[in-house]
Amino acid sequence: MPRPTDHELFDLGDVVLQGGATLRGAQLAYKTYGTLNAEKSNVIVHPTWYSAWHDANEWSVGPGMACDPDKYFIVMPNQLNNGLSTSPSNTPPPYDGPNFPHVTFYDQVEVQHRLLTQKWGIESVELVLGSSMGAGQTYQWAVSHPEMVKRAAPIVGSSVTSEHNQVFLKSLRAALTADPVFDGGRYSPDALPTVGLRAFARIYAGWGLSQAFYWQREYRTLGFSSLEDFLVGFWEGYWLDERDPNDLLGMLWTWEHGDVGKTPGFDGDTEAALRSIRCPLLAMPAKTDLYFPPEDEVWASQFIPNGEVRVIPTIYGHFAGLGQNPADNEFIDRALTELLARPA
Amino acid sequence: MPRPTDHELFDLGDVVLQGGATLRGAQLAYKTYGTLNAEKSNVIVHPTWYSAWHDANEWSVGPGMACDPDKYFIVMPNQLNNGLSTSPSNTPPPYDGPNFPHVTFYDQVEVQHRLLTQKWGIESVELVLGSSMGAGQTYQWAVSHPEMVKRAAPIVGSSVTSEHNQVFLKSLRAALTADPVFDGGRYSPDALPTVGLRAFARIYAGWGLSQAFYWQREYRTLGFSSLEDFLVGFWEGYWLDERDPNDLLGMLWTWEHGDVGKTPGFDGDTEAALRSIRCPLLAMPAKTDLYFPPEDEVWASQFIPNGEVRVIPTIYGHFAGLGQNPADNEFIDRALTELLARPA
Repeated sequence: MPRPTDHELFDLGDVVLQGGATLRGAQLAYKTYGTLNAEKSNVIVHPTWYSAWHDANEWSVGPGMACDPDKYFIVMPNQLNNGLSTSPSNTPPPYDGPNFPHVTFYDQVEVQHRLLTQKWGIESVELVLGSSMGAGQTYQWAVSHPEMVKRAAPIVGSSVTSEHNQVFLKSLRAALTADPVFDGGRYSPDALPTVGLRAFARIYAGWGLSQAFYWQREYRTLGFSSLEDFLVGFWEGYWLDERDPNDLLGMLWTWEHGDVGKTPGFDGDTEAALRSIRCPLLAMPAKTDLYFPPEDEVWASQFIPNGEVRVIPTIYGHFAGLGQNPADNEFIDRALTELLARPA
Repeated sequence: MPRPTDHELFDLGDVVLQGGATLRGAQLAYKTYGTLNAEKSNVIVHPTWYSAWHDANEWSVGPGMACDPDKYFIVMPNQLNNGLSTSPSNTPPPYDGPNFPHVTFYDQVEVQHRLLTQKWGIESVELVLGSSMGAGQTYQWAVSHPEMVKRAAPIVGSSVTSEHNQVFLKSLRAALTADPVFDGGRYSPDALPTVGLRAFARIYAGWGLSQAFYWQREYRTLGFSSLEDFLVGFWEGYWLDERDPNDLLGMLWTWEHGDVGKTPGFDGDTEAALRSIRCPLLAMPAKTDLYFPPEDEVWASQFIPNGEVRVIPTIYGHFAGLGQNPADNEFIDRALTELLARPA
């Protein structure tokens, strides 16, 4: 899947990040589907997941679906660090490559908020949804802008990144940076640390899908002829496909440090942040997800006044929320349709 | 934990492996507990798990326990490749280091069989038990020598290594060998690929224990002050503690290719091999094990005429079978006591 070019760029100007650094002349890449109505009352926001570009969200959009472009104005902002928005790979010195500053989920949502308010004058959002790191951004939207978000649907994600999930991420970082070519992030774009990226791919392969997925050799349904073909053809191919290592490590940091409790005003209190969410929030973890297990969402839900958890019954593990399996897509779409039908 | 020195060595002579290579002048390291009775009717065999030496099995032995040394003669053979028995790290050229041949579970059991029959004239074994790769050897004993094994108890392991489990192992290998110091296995013993080993450790940390273990910060019970302290102090410390990378990769190969169906005579038919098991076999997977999930054992059990599965109710994941948690140890010991009390 080549890097998409069908997006637009919004000039953010200077962005002061939560950590203190200023990204000067930052840009947010986004794509929209459908038309903003005169009342500006038909907005859906759908941020991107780890390593992905906006096109990876398109499975959720279509006539007759919950995210119907004939009805809604759907905005898909690319997260900072993903290579299309301002990222290590496209920033000039001195904040280039490994010198790029850390970005939090709070920062991600603030720049998306600027896009919506400054570009279109949008004041309310019918639904924020997102998968995986997109779910982290969804939670953040609900906590950062309760005055604006009418409904939220975090899919295969969480409000705070669990320690087990962090161990996964730390193992990815350790494998990628073990490649000598990585050289502290000072590799040449013409000679990427492919040995480290292939190790990264194999680690990810074990976490991304469930035990049952592999037991049933479900990768054959996805068009792969054997386990090794799946590991090389899909997994290694994916991570070697124009995904920049410093960008990947930037997004990894955001994910690893995900916690709505870190929103200014909550002083690290995750439960208080969850209690502050005003809108209905429908969380959809996948039954067999190894790093965002349903338990994390059940835990969070107890603090959200209008929270609900609906577990996707699937063997696709984390991939259930990434548009890979028609049955899971349908489950999610039905739930989103129901959520959008609720008065808010 | 330093490498133990309280073992004995049995001269195996020349060992022709299943793959065709001959290990000349091979040795099997073992330790025994208790005394062989005159009838040679009180033997228990307990092989080692991945990366471990015999001392890692000692949690299962004690007066009043199922494996009571006042009653039984307990033999703990160290698997080939573990650094005490013949291994890449202690074999002279031409089969040294990365040139060491592949060893199967079948091979492991054949050399253990030589030890029992040639050294002591043992003809029957009351119980074979083992955890993780020790479980793989337990299944292999039951298939290779049904005439000899009276009871079998594979713990947190399986009869065939699932593809999901293989992905885990492939990721470990990819991370370790990404370290340039590894150099195709030709590293100097004085300059180990520690960057690769630390990445290896972080991958293992995510798989070895469950989501709930980390969520509850159960590592504090084990004496670690934080997640990072657990990752460095326990996990990195463990893999940097005199464990040779070529030995680790040797054991990894055995594990990855585990399948009782590969026993000579079964032509790859795993189900037929399981059907051939005559003794009672009590499998004890752990409820939260991420790479040897209970499902694999339930699958195998349906083919074993006298098979039973008893799931360890635990948040310790794979570690439940490695003697780390008193409650899990008790669960296992009770089950073993009951199994040994059954007429065979």
